[in-house]
Amino acid sequence: MQIYETMKQQAEALAPHMQEDRRDFHRYAESGWCEIRTSSLIAQRLAGLGYEVLTGRDVCRDEARMGLPLKAVLEDQYQRALEQGAVQPWAEQARDGFTGVIGILRCGEGPVIAMRFDIDALGVVEETSELHRPARAGFGSVNRGMMHACGHDGHAAIGLAVAEILMKLRRELKGTVKLIFQPAEEGVRGARAIVAHGHLDDVDYLLASHMGDSQGQPYQVGLSAGETLATSKLDVTFRGCAAHAGMIPEQGRNALLAAATAVLNLHAIPRSSEGETRINVGTLHAGSGRNVICDQAVMELEVRGANTEANRYMEDYARRIVEAAAAMHGCTCDIKLMGAAESMKSDEEMLQLCSRVCRDKLGLLPAPLSSLAGGSEDCSYLMNRVRETGGKGLYFSTLTPCSGPFHSRTFDFDETALTAAVQVFCGMAFCLMGIE
Amino acid sequence: MQIYETMKQQAEALAPHMQEDRRDFHRYAESGWCEIRTSSLIAQRLAGLGYEVLTGRDVCRDEARMGLPLKAVLEDQYQRALEQGAVQPWAEQARDGFTGVIGILRCGEGPVIAMRFDIDALGVVEETSELHRPARAGFGSVNRGMMHACGHDGHAAIGLAVAEILMKLRRELKGTVKLIFQPAEEGVRGARAIVAHGHLDDVDYLLASHMGDSQGQPYQVGLSAGETLATSKLDVTFRGCAAHAGMIPEQGRNALLAAATAVLNLHAIPRSSEGETRINVGTLHAGSGRNVICDQAVMELEVRGANTEANRYMEDYARRIVEAAAAMHGCTCDIKLMGAAESMKSDEEMLQLCSRVCRDKLGLLPAPLSSLAGGSEDCSYLMNRVRETGGKGLYFSTLTPCSGPFHSRTFDFDETALTAAVQVFCGMAFCLMGIE
Amino acid sequence: MQIYETMKQQAEALAPHMQEDRRDFHRYAESGWCEIRTSSLIAQRLAGLGYEVLTGRDVCRDEARMGLPLKAVLEDQYQRALEQGAVQPWAEQARDGFTGVIGILRCGEGPVIAMRFDIDALGVVEETSELHRPARAGFGSVNRGMMHACGHDGHAAIGLAVAEILMKLRRELKGTVKLIFQPAEEGVRGARAIVAHGHLDDVDYLLASHMGDSQGQPYQVGLSAGETLATSKLDVTFRGCAAHAGMIPEQGRNALLAAATAVLNLHAIPRSSEGETRINVGTLHAGSGRNVICDQAVMELEVRGANTEANRYMEDYARRIVEAAAAMHGCTCDIKLMGAAESMKSDEEMLQLCSRVCRDKLGLLPAPLSSLAGGSEDCSYLMNRVRETGGKGLYFSTLTPCSGPFHSRTFDFDETALTAAVQVFCGMAFCLMGIE
Amino acid sequence: MQIYETMKQQAEALAPHMQEDRRDFHRYAESGWCEIRTSSLIAQRLAGLGYEVLTGRDVCRDEARMGLPLKAVLEDQYQRALEQGAVQPWAEQARDGFTGVIGILRCGEGPVIAMRFDIDALGVVEETSELHRPARAGFGSVNRGMMHACGHDGHAAIGLAVAEILMKLRRELKGTVKLIFQPAEEGVRGARAIVAHGHLDDVDYLLASHMGDSQGQPYQVGLSAGETLATSKLDVTFRGCAAHAGMIPEQGRNALLAAATAVLNLHAIPRSSEGETRINVGTLHAGSGRNVICDQAVMELEVRGANTEANRYMEDYARRIVEAAAAMHGCTCDIKLMGAAESMKSDEEMLQLCSRVCRDKLGLLPAPLSSLAGGSEDCSYLMNRVRETGGKGLYFSTLTPCSGPFHSRTFDFDETALTAAVQVFCGMAFCLMGIE
Repeated sequence: MQIYETMKQQAEALAPHMQEDRRDFHRYAESGWCEIRTSSLIAQRLAGLGYEVLTGRDVCRDEARMGLPLKAVLEDQYQRALEQGAVQPWAEQARDGFTGVIGILRCGEGPVIAMRFDIDALGVVEETSELHRPARAGFGSVNRGMMHACGHDGHAAIGLAVAEILMKLRRELKGTVKLIFQPAEEGVRGARAIVAHGHLDDVDYLLASHMGDSQGQPYQVGLSAGETLATSKLDVTFRGCAAHAGMIPEQGRNALLAAATAVLNLHAIPRSSEGETRINVGTLHAGSGRNVICDQAVMELEVRGANTEANRYMEDYARRIVEAAAAMHGCTCDIKLMGAAESMKSDEEMLQLCSRVCRDKLGLLPAPLSSLAGGSEDCSYLMNRVRETGGKGLYFSTLTPCSGPFHSRTFDFDETALTAAVQVFCGMAFCLMGIE
Repeated sequence: MQIYETMKQQAEALAPHMQEDRRDFHRYAESGWCEIRTSSLIAQRLAGLGYEVLTGRDVCRDEARMGLPLKAVLEDQYQRALEQGAVQPWAEQARDGFTGVIGILRCGEGPVIAMRFDIDALGVVEETSELHRPARAGFGSVNRGMMHACGHDGHAAIGLAVAEILMKLRRELKGTVKLIFQPAEEGVRGARAIVAHGHLDDVDYLLASHMGDSQGQPYQVGLSAGETLATSKLDVTFRGCAAHAGMIPEQGRNALLAAATAVLNLHAIPRSSEGETRINVGTLHAGSGRNVICDQAVMELEVRGANTEANRYMEDYARRIVEAAAAMHGCTCDIKLMGAAESMKSDEEMLQLCSRVCRDKLGLLPAPLSSLAGGSEDCSYLMNRVRETGGKGLYFSTLTPCSGPFHSRTFDFDETALTAAVQVFCGMAFCLMGIE
Repeated sequence: MQIYETMKQQAEALAPHMQEDRRDFHRYAESGWCEIRTSSLIAQRLAGLGYEVLTGRDVCRDEARMGLPLKAVLEDQYQRALEQGAVQPWAEQARDGFTGVIGILRCGEGPVIAMRFDIDALGVVEETSELHRPARAGFGSVNRGMMHACGHDGHAAIGLAVAEILMKLRRELKGTVKLIFQPAEEGVRGARAIVAHGHLDDVDYLLASHMGDSQGQPYQVGLSAGETLATSKLDVTFRGCAAHAGMIPEQGRNALLAAATAVLNLHAIPRSSEGETRINVGTLHAGSGRNVICDQAVMELEVRGANTEANRYMEDYARRIVEAAAAMHGCTCDIKLMGAAESMKSDEEMLQLCSRVCRDKLGLLPAPLSSLAGGSEDCSYLMNRVRETGGKGLYFSTLTPCSGPFHSRTFDFDETALTAAVQVFCGMAFCLMGIE
Repeated sequence: MQIYETMKQQAEALAPHMQEDRRDFHRYAESGWCEIRTSSLIAQRLAGLGYEVLTGRDVCRDEARMGLPLKAVLEDQYQRALEQGAVQPWAEQARDGFTGVIGILRCGEGPVIAMRFDIDALGVVEETSELHRPARAGFGSVNRGMMHACGHDGHAAIGLAVAEILMKLRRELKGTVKLIFQPAEEGVRGARAIVAHGHLDDVDYLLASHMGDSQGQPYQVGLSAGETLATSKLDVTFRGCAAHAGMIPEQGRNALLAAATAVLNLHAIPRSSEGETRINVGTLHAGSGRNVICDQAVMELEVRGANTEANRYMEDYARRIVEAAAAMHGCTCDIKLMGAAESMKSDEEMLQLCSRVCRDKLGLLPAPLSSLAGGSEDCSYLMNRVRETGGKGLYFSTLTPCSGPFHSRTFDFDETALTAAVQVFCGMAFCLMGIE
């Protein structure tokens, strides 16, 4: 029991550092596949602590990465990162979208435990008014259009604190710990490439967490038996032919008519009795001028399903609609898979164990087991891979008061919750290693 | 000049008979390809007058007939016609959709002049209130769902009066007259089959007329230099797959979603700078029950264009939309051409001539030449065929006060106008034969 | 234990009679609110057995009946029923849509147990080929367009057998039994009116069953902890203005454009995280002619939701879409609620009890408790009313091999299952009355 | 006849200067309401020549200007113009969207003749490859996203040459000439504001021209009796409510569903028998992220009609559709009129006169009178105002070989045609002043 106490105190002692880390990541928010500065700082820290560190092409398998920005954007971001303090040689390794870091600590016989911390920001313009704490306290994002509006800045900070504590206590540990700092979780683009590299093949237990809004409740840890949604993210481009809309409208091929038809019909895909489904055409950008028949329309859409089958039903139907809508107006179309996740749920025993650890070992208050699920998680690839090889997984929420909804420009969270998350990660690791 | 006067008096003397004929046709209204009683009475009358009479398969070429009702309907109508006084052997010849009559009068050397009188009713339920004169005066249609709401009953009566007068004056005539009592003008289904039989191949002049609303003006004859619209009539059937809408919605293939998508996109076919276009999905019947995914949707649509090209543009686009809409929802579709007309306009000289004949020979008041065109006319096949072989055509309106819009259940017209129409047909014939 | 054995033997002995009853009801299928012959025969039978019998206006509260056919239809059906052997005075009482029968048996102190048997047919044209047993065996529906394609003929036969057995064993019973032969279950139109009359206010236990497809499994009784879907059935009429589609299209107000827009958008109502939803526009009938701008479009639609809130969300959104679609094209619309059901689930204890009764007392094989739910049930009004007043409800499936899907023209079921259903109803009643 | 010859020679002599002017305007292309440098240079030149010059608020009436850019954009453009050689004090006067110049030359008794030269560029990114002459010859636009792709650079150059010649010959003139260098013709935004200022109230004749593609024909001047289309340009913003598309889709209000519904229905507005119509939704920009219910959609659309009534029919219907589409999905909408033009045609006598002047006085080859019309022209406001007060108008095409379609990134024209245009403007002026 001694080790749990020691660890709890260390976690508390690290609270100011975590806040500092979190705010630094927040200030220099980097979106998916562009986490160059972030990755370089994490790698440097892990190396400094004594971890075996994997970076660059050793983290994500090249061709399994989804939804990569254009090369020119990646290069711009690399330069920007250097200006903002990215450290070498790590930054260079993260160039061209090879972000993400894995730190490994081997402590003899025992289970292999992987912990996932995602590190990317979102494409959101952050609020700059004084009402928004990051603005007021001077840690608002300096990268316009990139914002940690989903708490991954906190996740990264948690990961670094966990790394520090586990290293300090390494002599007591029995087994191997892999700390996976995952890139490009937003848009569910990065996890598949980590799995493809084989990093999960020898893992016995996977632990992952996400910030969650405590909504006025006193609970510190959220646990759910529900399943997250499988999802596919598609980018669609309709290409038609421009023509003067007043003079020769019949000579155009109207990509916007195709797109509008697709939008309505996509949302009208029949519900399925096989499980919950979702569809959203999130963005549509079409046309070059008011008096020109629209010759190009680009849309970003996503489908989801309670399970892989329901998601496949949606994706197949969506592809058929898009192709028919294009054909209807003499247009062509191009459909690109930009991201994907499977459905995922925590193992029953892991949920029970976590609940017990929180209460008995850590003095934390877990919420009653819920069956809610909600969104989609890139983590599904990691967890499902671990399961395939006989391992088990746990996904828990780090509950904390939040300002503004997730993904909104006013999102912020109470940083005191970071400590509890560190304690759960470490406590679970001890338990799974059989340390009392 | 004598013959014009004689003819005028005869036409006036026939007015009560024309009214009687018109009301008889109105009472026993028969829609396209079902004009069995109508055809038999016309044939009997023409034969009685001494005309060379063509009926049955000698009028319309079998396979060129468009939009034929089902065989069973034709047979029902045949039986109905017999009960309502159709006369043999003419009725028998009109069986199976071989309606229509041609009467020929040969008077030596001279031009061949064809006159077209269409004889079919519409699929309209006639008004039965006392406010509607046919109901009040006891000549409302006894065939529910068939109504002379477009004045073809008057056209047939005009044709019979013309037949009688020309026969009486045959010794003065120089040339050949063909009186074509055409079936199935509504839906533009019959004329093509008459042309296909070759009846227009030797014609020098074609004369045709349609009732028109005088709208409070004193004019008796309307003349237009405008062009009627080319048109194509399509029947579309979407076939999907039924499924319980609550239990297994994902197993259906929804023919109504396909049809609704088609309806919106059909009406959204881009306008053309090549000329006026029209599109209408007039009817849609879909589905078998509220809680069943719709497995069949049937629609009647039409496209039009100011010229053949504009109409073809519309038809091609419409077919593409229908096929893509079906594919979009995993349905099949079936597209059937039910009727078609070309665009048509009167020859300039014929318009001038008619205007002069009206004023100088007949004492009738022609309206100023208009450039309006409006609807589509099956007559276009006849006129365009005559033109192809070097002939000329005239299409004029017989103006008269009307109650209710054309094609409405309250349509009726002032029968005194029939006399003027007879005079124009005969007067034009005299003139074209060179009779002063 | 003696009474269970006695009852089981009586049920088996009644099997041929049940088959006869079921086939008679099947042959003279009557759809919702038109079950005049059916009701009259049931009433006569119950009266003959000695039941206190409620019919006519004593069963359904007049103004709470939903989705009533037109008066003229009801009268036609009444005449038809008389010709087909409806018996007086019961038929007269069922006139004007006052169908349904309640039989009451009072046996002293004890719980009030209601059993629901629905008796209406569907608007389906029955298969007439020899491949379909009802056709082959001579009990196919003689009422074209009405067919027992959902097994309610069996439900009615079960109810009569239960009535006979309970009456025979009345001296052993302790409490009151209400046998509710409910009209108009299809379209969820009738139950609300029975509740509105107060018949459920004093009920302690409600028992109801529906035929279910055993799908090759050996189970005889299906039990589910799932919830049926709440639903609302709406009839919508769009009214526009007709105009000639070629001549003056701009003067029309196109009801079909409004309807097509509504169809697509209705199916595109966003999914809800509050629970499963459903939407179906099952039928659409629009327009009067190909070349006329459509002036009227009538559609039948339904929405569903896993719970009352989800259903209300769908209904509210649907109404808004319909109104906006009408306004968009200058049309008016009329929305009529034709039927409604709440969501419903069996009480946990009743499911457990039924499972035990089947196994221990009746020697029947219940399927493992499922969580499936699927469709909607009018019975929800009855069950939820019973619950409101502190009672409990059980809804079970009578499993049997079926030919063709439910609601299809080829639906039929194996009648030997009827016996098991009778045993479950009676066995549950004994148990709830505390009879060992 | 002497003056015509003199003028012709002067026009030819000015050809190199016109080319230079044209290329300068092309290189520093400025779009509507931002023609600050352009206006300042024109004003300076006219003043230098001795014209009475109106600029700034004296040209366009403030509140009648349509489709003004945001204030910040105007200010940016002002600064940009200064950097690119705009001259004071004229530039200052053109600040805040008060562009455009009028030069007046009064020569005693005689008619008031206005000539319109539009000066604005389009929002097109110019081709930069060597295949495009402006790029090759070094006069491609330096203002990215602004390009003279419609020939208004040529129009401005013509106007300056006309100004120079008329001033030289002023002693021969009898009447007043107003040279109107109009801003913001693209998007039909500027003319209305010039009319609103009263500048056309005293005008007897209006002359205007546009470059036209000679398409391999030898004609130099195009004349049409056809009517341009009336038009309205609308910007629409739909505002809904964002929500996470996976977690709480039912809490969003989807602005993209509203917009897609509007797009389809806008294009489906029924054709009109009152005259040709057009509709185009040229651009649509919607949504902020793939997994967020779209909360804002902005579209640019235009309607057109052969006459003011047909255009009003389209605009009214379009507004109704937009409002209903918003209401359908619980969104609000905002509709802004960004530009408008009436329909316009040249006076018959002016066309005849121009044809004669070209042939007899100028030795130019006019094309046969066409009846084509095509697009819309802001000039309609000027011409219709002149007509209202009893004056007459002429709109002619300056025919020349063109590369690439109008409004395309590769548009260019043969500058030798500018000379002919100058000759027509001057020649017509002489004639209208009665100078032989």
